[in-house]
Amino acid sequence: MATYLEQLETPVPIVDLDRLAHNLDRMAAYATLHGLRLRPHVKTHKSPRIAAEQLRMGAVGLTCATLREAEVMADVCTDILVAYPPVGAARLERLARMPQHVNVSVAADDAQALDALSVAARLGHRTIDVLVEADLGMHRVGVATPDRAVAMARHIDRAPSLRFAGLQFYPGHIRAHVHEQDAGLAQLGRDLGMYIEALTDAGLPPTTVSGGSTPAAWRMHEVPGVNEVRPGTYVYNDRTTAQIGACHWEDCALTVLATVVSVSVKGQAVVDAGTKALGREPLRAEGDGYGALLDHPEVIVSRMSEEHGILDLSQTSWRPRLGDQVRIVPNHVCIVVHLFDEVIGVRGLAVETRWDVAARGRDSNRELDRAPNGPRAV
Amino acid sequence: MATYLEQLETPVPIVDLDRLAHNLDRMAAYATLHGLRLRPHVKTHKSPRIAAEQLRMGAVGLTCATLREAEVMADVCTDILVAYPPVGAARLERLARMPQHVNVSVAADDAQALDALSVAARLGHRTIDVLVEADLGMHRVGVATPDRAVAMARHIDRAPSLRFAGLQFYPGHIRAHVHEQDAGLAQLGRDLGMYIEALTDAGLPPTTVSGGSTPAAWRMHEVPGVNEVRPGTYVYNDRTTAQIGACHWEDCALTVLATVVSVSVKGQAVVDAGTKALGREPLRAEGDGYGALLDHPEVIVSRMSEEHGILDLSQTSWRPRLGDQVRIVPNHVCIVVHLFDEVIGVRGLAVETRWDVAARGRDSNRELDRAPNGPRAV
Repeated sequence: MATYLEQLETPVPIVDLDRLAHNLDRMAAYATLHGLRLRPHVKTHKSPRIAAEQLRMGAVGLTCATLREAEVMADVCTDILVAYPPVGAARLERLARMPQHVNVSVAADDAQALDALSVAARLGHRTIDVLVEADLGMHRVGVATPDRAVAMARHIDRAPSLRFAGLQFYPGHIRAHVHEQDAGLAQLGRDLGMYIEALTDAGLPPTTVSGGSTPAAWRMHEVPGVNEVRPGTYVYNDRTTAQIGACHWEDCALTVLATVVSVSVKGQAVVDAGTKALGREPLRAEGDGYGALLDHPEVIVSRMSEEHGILDLSQTSWRPRLGDQVRIVPNHVCIVVHLFDEVIGVRGLAVETRWDVAARGRDSNRELDRAPNGPRAV
Repeated sequence: MATYLEQLETPVPIVDLDRLAHNLDRMAAYATLHGLRLRPHVKTHKSPRIAAEQLRMGAVGLTCATLREAEVMADVCTDILVAYPPVGAARLERLARMPQHVNVSVAADDAQALDALSVAARLGHRTIDVLVEADLGMHRVGVATPDRAVAMARHIDRAPSLRFAGLQFYPGHIRAHVHEQDAGLAQLGRDLGMYIEALTDAGLPPTTVSGGSTPAAWRMHEVPGVNEVRPGTYVYNDRTTAQIGACHWEDCALTVLATVVSVSVKGQAVVDAGTKALGREPLRAEGDGYGALLDHPEVIVSRMSEEHGILDLSQTSWRPRLGDQVRIVPNHVCIVVHLFDEVIGVRGLAVETRWDVAARGRDSNRELDRAPNGPRAV
């Protein structure tokens, strides 16, 4: 018996399967067209099912941020980049214990971390590929100069059980509209060129030069030297992605289905999706609010509490009734997925499938011995 | 064998059990002192274990926002207020199906919702207590005038299987420092008085007048007529609560344990707690950032990505090293708890216990039949 949207309890994330298929196809085609290797970041969907489809459509491997993501994705993938500093005993141990059928690579920006990583790799009976993370303007992580990149690469090259694999950068600071990214991309290309040249001169040419991120993904082929991209958001897209021109509004595949629960206060309607369903991510583009309605983009979520979202009705003639369902396009979809355990796949108004956000948690602390007694004070 | 903080994988929420005990005790004592009934909101901890302790210390019942919370808390509680509009078929069905040993009450602001609620209560072979939600300045939900409250109360009083129980309001707009709340509280008292008078004149005096929220909790006894409070945050407290003077810094019981994963970019350190561990909640008081270090409050989390938090080192002489652990006091603790499946209880540096955030999910859609086949497009 078919289930329809109106039967679902809200708030719940809904994925339009046709839009998802289109988004997957579009990025795969872009990468193929430009000879870029596609290594999608799973942080957006955290689902092995979608990851398997990305791989089937030509992705060379996957990108993960957490070890939980990497462990879950090992079920469907043999080549995983943990694009995160390999720092901390637990993280190193989990890296070393990844299944042997998986080729594991990491990104590092500190020589101090490499010795422990080398030990972990050796104890895990494996070789770990290491990309040097370069800071090309994001100012988050990454070495600051080509000289430091060369020093890191030499250190990696000498370290037992590690292999220097190339360069990684994250162009997350390039958030302008896709048609206004020229200056940022040109600067990126010049900076990146110096890193590639320095490494090549040092006899350690980077095999992989990995960039990406959805906002700049469609123009990554214009940056000389880049041969791999790591976009994540493109599978679902979101309000920010649409607003900066990296997708159309009609490409937003994930919405949060919500119910109007109060119309008591004038000029607004309250839905049951608040911060615990939408996050409180700003729109990283022109515009306000924390999300907008798929079918009434002029209606934004202007305020939120934990379980309340306030729809601002001042810019619309639409008047919702108590109990109406709405679909909210969130500002930042990766945060929304992380807030739920399950996602529902729909075609039109019919529920077709559902899948777990299997890589959502953190998990390894759960394996520690549990204390035999409850807390004395609680 | 004891486990210590340094053995934990980060990011992970850590609760100082002594501080938790002190916080529970302090609010219970306040309520007892002033003859207020304490009905704590479980949204903050989402844990039946802490709820049971709140009840043991004198709470008259619990407040929930979601039906998942109510269902989980039914294991430890016989009197549950779902302080949320009873709108939507699934929500009504779950309300009706609550275990019979639980007295269920709800808050409503729309007469239209009452008929369906009455039917649900009758089908569930139960009587549901209904509080009329009044908007006393928050402008989120609630009826806007005493006249409407009277009309609602009459409607409830006439509806089969419903019982008019009183008034509820949420003073979430009173966010000033506790010593600067005088004007807000005075206005609240005047407005509330009109509602109580109108209902009393109509022959429907409110048995329960339920206010609360942690920021204004400590002064609720000054508002004439209020006989019940519903604070949630006080169990753990957070940076906002401390900043507005509703607790001391030393009362912040929950911190996010994080590891320094990069010190490559000058003037900052990067920890592995980003938006997916801390949320992106503003400090609702003087100050910037998304959290501050428990042991170095001058160090704030100034920027975040999903798995990266940037510590601003410009106001401190403290210099972290790669791999160091830090404890972050989040701006808004309720959001942090909702991001994790488990919380770890510590005494000093030793792990003493852990508990599930059992009421975190949403759940009921999981019970729908699963489609037999995978999605065609994925």
